[in-house]
Amino acid sequence: MSESKGSLTTNVVRPSGRAFDQLRPVSMVAGFTRHAEGSVLIKAGDTHVLCNASVLEKVPPFLKGKGQGWVTAEYGMLPRSTHTRSDREAARGKQSGRTQEIQRLIGRSLRAVFDLQALGERTLHLDCDVLQADGGTRCASITGAWVAAALAVQTLLDNHILATNPIKDSVTAVSVGMVNGAAVLDLDYIEDSGCDADMNIVMTGAGHFVEVQGTAEGQTFDRKALDALLDLAHGGILQLAEYQQKALGR
Amino acid sequence: MSESKGSLTTNVVRPSGRAFDQLRPVSMVAGFTRHAEGSVLIKAGDTHVLCNASVLEKVPPFLKGKGQGWVTAEYGMLPRSTHTRSDREAARGKQSGRTQEIQRLIGRSLRAVFDLQALGERTLHLDCDVLQADGGTRCASITGAWVAAALAVQTLLDNHILATNPIKDSVTAVSVGMVNGAAVLDLDYIEDSGCDADMNIVMTGAGHFVEVQGTAEGQTFDRKALDALLDLAHGGILQLAEYQQKALGR
Amino acid sequence: MSESKGSLTTNVVRPSGRAFDQLRPVSMVAGFTRHAEGSVLIKAGDTHVLCNASVLEKVPPFLKGKGQGWVTAEYGMLPRSTHTRSDREAARGKQSGRTQEIQRLIGRSLRAVFDLQALGERTLHLDCDVLQADGGTRCASITGAWVAAALAVQTLLDNHILATNPIKDSVTAVSVGMVNGAAVLDLDYIEDSGCDADMNIVMTGAGHFVEVQGTAEGQTFDRKALDALLDLAHGGILQLAEYQQKALGR
Amino acid sequence: MSESKGSLTTNVVRPSGRAFDQLRPVSMVAGFTRHAEGSVLIKAGDTHVLCNASVLEKVPPFLKGKGQGWVTAEYGMLPRSTHTRSDREAARGKQSGRTQEIQRLIGRSLRAVFDLQALGERTLHLDCDVLQADGGTRCASITGAWVAAALAVQTLLDNHILATNPIKDSVTAVSVGMVNGAAVLDLDYIEDSGCDADMNIVMTGAGHFVEVQGTAEGQTFDRKALDALLDLAHGGILQLAEYQQKALGR
Amino acid sequence: MSESKGSLTTNVVRPSGRAFDQLRPVSMVAGFTRHAEGSVLIKAGDTHVLCNASVLEKVPPFLKGKGQGWVTAEYGMLPRSTHTRSDREAARGKQSGRTQEIQRLIGRSLRAVFDLQALGERTLHLDCDVLQADGGTRCASITGAWVAAALAVQTLLDNHILATNPIKDSVTAVSVGMVNGAAVLDLDYIEDSGCDADMNIVMTGAGHFVEVQGTAEGQTFDRKALDALLDLAHGGILQLAEYQQKALGR
Amino acid sequence: MSESKGSLTTNVVRPSGRAFDQLRPVSMVAGFTRHAEGSVLIKAGDTHVLCNASVLEKVPPFLKGKGQGWVTAEYGMLPRSTHTRSDREAARGKQSGRTQEIQRLIGRSLRAVFDLQALGERTLHLDCDVLQADGGTRCASITGAWVAAALAVQTLLDNHILATNPIKDSVTAVSVGMVNGAAVLDLDYIEDSGCDADMNIVMTGAGHFVEVQGTAEGQTFDRKALDALLDLAHGGILQLAEYQQKALGR
Repeated sequence: MSESKGSLTTNVVRPSGRAFDQLRPVSMVAGFTRHAEGSVLIKAGDTHVLCNASVLEKVPPFLKGKGQGWVTAEYGMLPRSTHTRSDREAARGKQSGRTQEIQRLIGRSLRAVFDLQALGERTLHLDCDVLQADGGTRCASITGAWVAAALAVQTLLDNHILATNPIKDSVTAVSVGMVNGAAVLDLDYIEDSGCDADMNIVMTGAGHFVEVQGTAEGQTFDRKALDALLDLAHGGILQLAEYQQKALGR
Repeated sequence: MSESKGSLTTNVVRPSGRAFDQLRPVSMVAGFTRHAEGSVLIKAGDTHVLCNASVLEKVPPFLKGKGQGWVTAEYGMLPRSTHTRSDREAARGKQSGRTQEIQRLIGRSLRAVFDLQALGERTLHLDCDVLQADGGTRCASITGAWVAAALAVQTLLDNHILATNPIKDSVTAVSVGMVNGAAVLDLDYIEDSGCDADMNIVMTGAGHFVEVQGTAEGQTFDRKALDALLDLAHGGILQLAEYQQKALGR
Repeated sequence: MSESKGSLTTNVVRPSGRAFDQLRPVSMVAGFTRHAEGSVLIKAGDTHVLCNASVLEKVPPFLKGKGQGWVTAEYGMLPRSTHTRSDREAARGKQSGRTQEIQRLIGRSLRAVFDLQALGERTLHLDCDVLQADGGTRCASITGAWVAAALAVQTLLDNHILATNPIKDSVTAVSVGMVNGAAVLDLDYIEDSGCDADMNIVMTGAGHFVEVQGTAEGQTFDRKALDALLDLAHGGILQLAEYQQKALGR
Repeated sequence: MSESKGSLTTNVVRPSGRAFDQLRPVSMVAGFTRHAEGSVLIKAGDTHVLCNASVLEKVPPFLKGKGQGWVTAEYGMLPRSTHTRSDREAARGKQSGRTQEIQRLIGRSLRAVFDLQALGERTLHLDCDVLQADGGTRCASITGAWVAAALAVQTLLDNHILATNPIKDSVTAVSVGMVNGAAVLDLDYIEDSGCDADMNIVMTGAGHFVEVQGTAEGQTFDRKALDALLDLAHGGILQLAEYQQKALGR
Repeated sequence: MSESKGSLTTNVVRPSGRAFDQLRPVSMVAGFTRHAEGSVLIKAGDTHVLCNASVLEKVPPFLKGKGQGWVTAEYGMLPRSTHTRSDREAARGKQSGRTQEIQRLIGRSLRAVFDLQALGERTLHLDCDVLQADGGTRCASITGAWVAAALAVQTLLDNHILATNPIKDSVTAVSVGMVNGAAVLDLDYIEDSGCDADMNIVMTGAGHFVEVQGTAEGQTFDRKALDALLDLAHGGILQLAEYQQKALGR
Repeated sequence: MSESKGSLTTNVVRPSGRAFDQLRPVSMVAGFTRHAEGSVLIKAGDTHVLCNASVLEKVPPFLKGKGQGWVTAEYGMLPRSTHTRSDREAARGKQSGRTQEIQRLIGRSLRAVFDLQALGERTLHLDCDVLQADGGTRCASITGAWVAAALAVQTLLDNHILATNPIKDSVTAVSVGMVNGAAVLDLDYIEDSGCDADMNIVMTGAGHFVEVQGTAEGQTFDRKALDALLDLAHGGILQLAEYQQKALGR
């Protein structure tokens, strides 16, 4: 895959020894916890996120009586998921701006592939809790949350609570970034801390964009770099989408 | 300008009667309030944001003694800046996730063009308060905040508090979106509410990206649409950057 | 006007050069924002307050089903409305005691001239946001809020939502104080900071008291001073009430 | 005493059977609790407030190193001090606007008679907790807090921590109001609920005003009524000041 | 009583001069405040707690329509009930973990002797407010709260709101602890601060346990010590239960 | 083991099929996460708790400069660790009373076996996060937290940061309860929901009590039942303590 990317510096040396377009080892353990309607522990290298999908037979107030459902998400990091201990948000009494930004992103990403009418007046609540962090937790959360959601929906279909599948497509996320002038796929914490720019790309199984979020860290980036990053992300998304299908036993 | 964009549907009819690549009327009133070191009221059509820059002779704890400054931002909407009254965040006792997301974006965008060492151990605090909203408030905030920041820095230079200008480039933001299959520039509230996808693009005067944030609303978008939106945004940014220079009397 | 006040020291020298019984220049811009049912930007010298009146088709829980309406107010200062930047209350997570005291005062003052039965089961919500502060913001808020309320009520009358005007009288506020032993009208920030005692007087168009709030700052005051201050306030109220009528086009 | 008041309706019938200018029975128990440097339980009829004065060997941040002290107050009502149970503010997570307004008033009133330089760099913290409420709790709090403060200061003098008394004068508060067109002294809860206007007057032992707070409830009031209320309050203050001296054993 | 306890060191010297199995002087003043349906001021030595029982004609959401009532409690300490002033929880904006732990304990203890069906769909809300603290406030709260509850229930019975008494038994609490190797009854603050282990025991009139809470402070304790403490507590509970009956006039 | 317990009903039928004195299957995975100085995933049947110990080179304010360390704990449940989803405490903005009660218990239990002087001026912070709950989470947290603490201390000893082991003994917790009149060991969720009384017992390796917490749920219990429960708990503690040693590789 590496040769065809034209503008990408293909011989970059990464701290992890990975190729520029190589994902971290991925695993997804379905059914990690037993109470949630859908549960998966997703590991992308040393980033481990527990994604639980709960089916709630109610909708938020603004949707009451509208004959449609809702999909939403919450995100949290265990205090010692990180290299040094972070404050517990429940103890501080509020979620940080970063937490809220991430959980809004997860919710939007999932809703993009859901037919909310077909879901009926119920809520699919995704909880993404980071047990161990090494960069890329928001992308792992989205990728894992979709699997948890699919498992929960399968339960509803199996129990004839739903007649048709409200999930229109898969949704998958990956990070890419410019590190020392080179575009690389799936940044770990070391790369993330020192990169010039990083992007989180969320795409459907059909190859369409759901979210494109690129941020210059220290150094702004031009259109050519942006194009290279988008190409690279697409390749990663394709591989991750296969892992998702495998985790569902398809 | 309209003919050259290839993939863009150039004859879209917009509620406002604007051409697909036409900004709303822009005005920037420097010195709108008198206490702030830099103050500007920016109007983009019916979106009016008061941007005030304050110079504080202190830095956040994590920067103490590091010989560099900080640039940060806060954002708020007056309760009746919107079509229907929104709750006052101070009364509810917390800022919404949306508010925090926006003020983090403004802060990052401004920092991307600042030499924080050159700023010295002080903080430039940008307050962006929406007096009237009609879509695009976060982009107007960034565009206006840069002008307010430049005014405050000018004061520091004039008073010989700073010897060299810590601002490396201008920074400007604009929204673009897909409305009924057509890419359009600078969405107002009606278009924003009904669009398929919208993007906020933040660029420097040199034409580099600082932030690229695209979100599918209801409909995902492909690479071709993304390219069209990026082209369109660039055109809008160039015009807005001229207004910024004019507001500074350059 | 100055000679007739008997006990008042009429030849006091004020920082602003104003006579002891002279208001700051007043202006009221009706329709300053477009979404509110009533909107006015009131300027009393360098104190600028945006007063927006919203009509909400609901009442607080304690009034449900009682066949009457409610009038209430919220007050806020933009962080850089002041000489040095103040914390944003929404970011701190609570409104200060001062803020709550002021907004309770504004609400009480407005309710004193309202026939709540005639308003019907709806709420008139006044938002008073200080864009720039130079003393006397609570008085300017009350004076401006009444105009905003009157504009909103006019809309309800014009649209035949109300058949009779629920506003029984105008209400107007002004500050007075003892500065260096002399009673002066309409204190600005410098005078307010250094005064011995200050009062905020709220009166109706008929010349009755709605609120009388006098506070000794550093020096207590006797009955004679109190009488002088009340006389002086009455004169200021009469002038401000004319500005209110003019702003309503009467 | 009653005949001399001219404009006052002297033959009003009050629910309690009191004369228009008659205080409720007053008692002050010094040393009600043992840990506070000054402690008094003040009873004004069925209104019982425990006032504790604590001496803290520190000042608020804004006074550090300025060689002066501070006097401040906090106010609270026990949940079942009222006719029907009120929410506990600690459980709700915030103090109401009313609570904050009252404790700011108590603090200001006490500071008006204190020489803060003479107090030295320490804080006198007054806690006024209403054990039982029947109207007039803020006035009872001020009157009792002054006694508690005087007791605490006496301890400091006795222990030679202070050489000179920082208390310049006594401070006392009473409520007056217009009930059915008549001015009456020291309103209880029934009168307070139904009055046309009520005032809280805070005066020094020398007969000067510290605070004058009059509010129209349902009906505005004219200058003549205001004058009558001020006269009536003065009479009550004189009597309460005697109780204060007695409680101090003077 | 002292000789029979075998393992107990009966000749311990306590700071207060009390025997190892001697309670502090106890008093209970019924009807201390007048608005509460049941009110008692309980004094155990220098620990004074005001216990008020309120009858609310509603139940918490989770019990709506279930045909049963609820008994719950809140606990608070006045800021200067303690040797040095503590922060006011209402001002800090939250109740401490200790406060919540205690009020949960009081509620559970009371519910253990209540027939919630017999109470009907209403809530008995106990407020335990510590006016003065000298150790053992949670035990005094439980013992006093039961008396307040019994007074409130008596009112309901007298007014024929209840036909049968929902209170099945009395409930009483006392603390015991190991101080310098000796088991002692009813610790005051000095003993509590320096003890090796302390227990709070809640028992019914029938001599059954409702709560047993023992905590090693500095030194763990063995089964023999535990048995001695339980014996000692039982003796104290029996005496306190008599005071409860006396306070109810039985 | 079962026959020897005398007063215990040994032939009780439990939902899980376990004998009355049989623990759930136990496992402890040391090193479950990689950043914490000590990490263990403890499983007691379907109750899974991740216990992470962090070493922080600071102490709380009240211990600064006192030459000793601190051991503290925080506890949380993932929202979908439970049968039905619970609110996320970080989103609600505060920790429940139950959460605070549990984390205080964990902290006290650990401190009981620590020599805080020997720990030096640092904090051992235990985070106990419930990934899956089926009763007994507080006991599993204590038992697991001790293992995590021991692992963290071992790291400090191995790195010569500590010269002597500050851990004086092991600490272990188990629940017991009366279910249908029979004393049973290690209640799962079904038994916990329906029990008459439950106790949490915390003991040291030397067989001494650290905490004894018994609560009547629905039915009070007598001394004989208490004795039976204490016996039963001791047996469970002994077994769990062996698992702890095994997890540490001893």
